[in-house]
Amino acid sequence: MAASMLKVALGNRALSSGARDALWKLGRLNHVAIAVPEMEKARSFYREMLGARVSEPVALPEHGVLTAFVELGNAKLELLEPLGPDSPIRRFLQKNRGGGMHHICIEVDHLPAAVEQLRAREVRTLSREARIGAHGKPVIFLHPKDCGGVLVELEEA
Amino acid sequence: MAASMLKVALGNRALSSGARDALWKLGRLNHVAIAVPEMEKARSFYREMLGARVSEPVALPEHGVLTAFVELGNAKLELLEPLGPDSPIRRFLQKNRGGGMHHICIEVDHLPAAVEQLRAREVRTLSREARIGAHGKPVIFLHPKDCGGVLVELEEA
Repeated sequence: MAASMLKVALGNRALSSGARDALWKLGRLNHVAIAVPEMEKARSFYREMLGARVSEPVALPEHGVLTAFVELGNAKLELLEPLGPDSPIRRFLQKNRGGGMHHICIEVDHLPAAVEQLRAREVRTLSREARIGAHGKPVIFLHPKDCGGVLVELEEA
Repeated sequence: MAASMLKVALGNRALSSGARDALWKLGRLNHVAIAVPEMEKARSFYREMLGARVSEPVALPEHGVLTAFVELGNAKLELLEPLGPDSPIRRFLQKNRGGGMHHICIEVDHLPAAVEQLRAREVRTLSREARIGAHGKPVIFLHPKDCGGVLVELEEA
């Protein structure tokens, strides 16, 4: 984990002061994304079994996914079905055939500042630039190996 | 997924009417649990790298875990480090050495009614009875094979 590497490189004091001087702030948990092999089965589970409100599916061909949201009041689950041959979740579903938790999305108040500071601290991003996400806002993914095995999406609030 | 099996057994009409007549209601997303091999590295990542508020670790020997919470305002991340030889997350970490998303916890207003209705619809629970969870409230886990590959914890709100 990059945190531990930096701890060695900079010492605790530098890390703590970095957190205090941050030019950006972490915000709410926007959603938990769940990869699903069959969107209609997944929508039916959350709607009929758990009684949740579930949105209609929306295709996002530029992201290679079909998406639908499960509304839990304070946060959402984002159901993701692969769309197209180059879908970024196709490999995940090959390893996890029944589906599973894919990533978490946390809001930040200033995405460029967050990306710059995290990169300076050796947290990698999966793409060079932010892209426009499912909510029409800039998003970027952090490398799971630098985030304790968790794929973290940051979204500009 | 059990939803699809029931669809075959009962037809869409019965499932829809079941959801409307529910004796319990799904509530907020309480937390996303993340299994971590080293609690202090994980706490440091969320605190120093992401600037989040992170609680002190608390040992829950009866659950076989050391826990700490990352406060995101609307919801929490629950960091889980294995505690003791029979920890329920030890096997997960053998498969996912760097850590990873372990389960989601959703609140319900009436846990016994939820369990009874879900069991009647062939959604299995991992234990026969609810237990007292990290927040001092009754919790039960649903079988991930019946929930699209996601380990779902229900907590009485």
